[in-house]
Amino acid sequence: MDFRLTDMTDDEIAQELSVVEPLTDSVRDLIDAVIRTEVDDDVLIAAREQIDAVVTSLRGNQKPGSYGVPFTRKLHGMPYGNAAVGKRNAIAPPLRVEHHDDGSATSEVVLGAAYEGPAGLVHGGISAMLLDQLLGEVVSVSQGVPCFTGTLTVKYLRPTPLGPLSLRAETTGSEGRKFFVHAEISDAEGPTVTAEGIMISPANMPRHEELKRLRAELAASAE
Amino acid sequence: MDFRLTDMTDDEIAQELSVVEPLTDSVRDLIDAVIRTEVDDDVLIAAREQIDAVVTSLRGNQKPGSYGVPFTRKLHGMPYGNAAVGKRNAIAPPLRVEHHDDGSATSEVVLGAAYEGPAGLVHGGISAMLLDQLLGEVVSVSQGVPCFTGTLTVKYLRPTPLGPLSLRAETTGSEGRKFFVHAEISDAEGPTVTAEGIMISPANMPRHEELKRLRAELAASAE
Repeated sequence: MDFRLTDMTDDEIAQELSVVEPLTDSVRDLIDAVIRTEVDDDVLIAAREQIDAVVTSLRGNQKPGSYGVPFTRKLHGMPYGNAAVGKRNAIAPPLRVEHHDDGSATSEVVLGAAYEGPAGLVHGGISAMLLDQLLGEVVSVSQGVPCFTGTLTVKYLRPTPLGPLSLRAETTGSEGRKFFVHAEISDAEGPTVTAEGIMISPANMPRHEELKRLRAELAASAE
Repeated sequence: MDFRLTDMTDDEIAQELSVVEPLTDSVRDLIDAVIRTEVDDDVLIAAREQIDAVVTSLRGNQKPGSYGVPFTRKLHGMPYGNAAVGKRNAIAPPLRVEHHDDGSATSEVVLGAAYEGPAGLVHGGISAMLLDQLLGEVVSVSQGVPCFTGTLTVKYLRPTPLGPLSLRAETTGSEGRKFFVHAEISDAEGPTVTAEGIMISPANMPRHEELKRLRAELAASAE
């Protein structure tokens, strides 16, 4: 894990997100429009020129590599480039995960044309991706340890329709640095896909308890 | 499966792709640029306005739902909206799959900032998505049967770096309408992720042999 701290204050981060998130939403809209458009070639060609001009303007100043996962000065992760939850990543729906007091995590998401596999259905690999993200987050938050996926087993019970879906995950057990996790995707009729994960917390990574302690120290020193 | 035939001739399809594919590539470039940009707010705000204008122009005429998988008049599938391989879908890298005489399938792909999970690494869910696609295609082409994923088991051997990667899949066995498949992702140092799939060929779907026969009839009737 990358413990690079951002140079920005919390206010600067909030200000940046207030501009970048709507831009990312517009790119999500554009992805959908390109898939579904039936306009004439001259409109498509003009669209490409306009997009290339926007890309040039955005690349006037940019990070050299991927976004990474920098940390705020209060030591909260900023996974804004993440393929499943990234606030700057138009590939991400993005999944917005809610964590509950009983240790479970849930998310409501609407998947459109960009997430299609078989006609009218969610791509099986997209279901796997969203479940993998949720499995990682539920261990990370409920157990207080960052982790990587060791093994992910996904069972497809029936086709998952594009449209509104609910996701749910919970930790079912642990064994040393291994955590066992269950998650599922449901449509209005019930579960369509289930996943079992074995998540591994690497030995050399700081635990959330340590981050909490550091955050408290930071808050105290700022007083 | 959707056996809707497209209204377009093969020449019209080729012409459309020659314009839509570069547009989709430009949107892929835009996704990357939005993740990595560090330009000022006024440039971001202008970028959003320009993108929204492009979206409006593209939505002047569009399919009502998702792209689906229409078929050409020669009965070849057009999965152009597919999340992993879709030529119109900027979420897809896109994976370009090569099928070999020994029944295996391979793909070379370069994954950039948009496919990140942990800092500098491919999102585990993205690896699962690409492997799921390859597993489906290798059964479909080498066994001549369309199929859905029943169970997908993904093992993460070590982190997968962003950058150039190789994928490979092969069918390892079958039992009635079930096919067992193995696939893996490798970087320059060797495999990073492996997957085992149990793929199910639904009873009510036409086999490729039937499509081949229909294609031959079509060709004969056109002479």
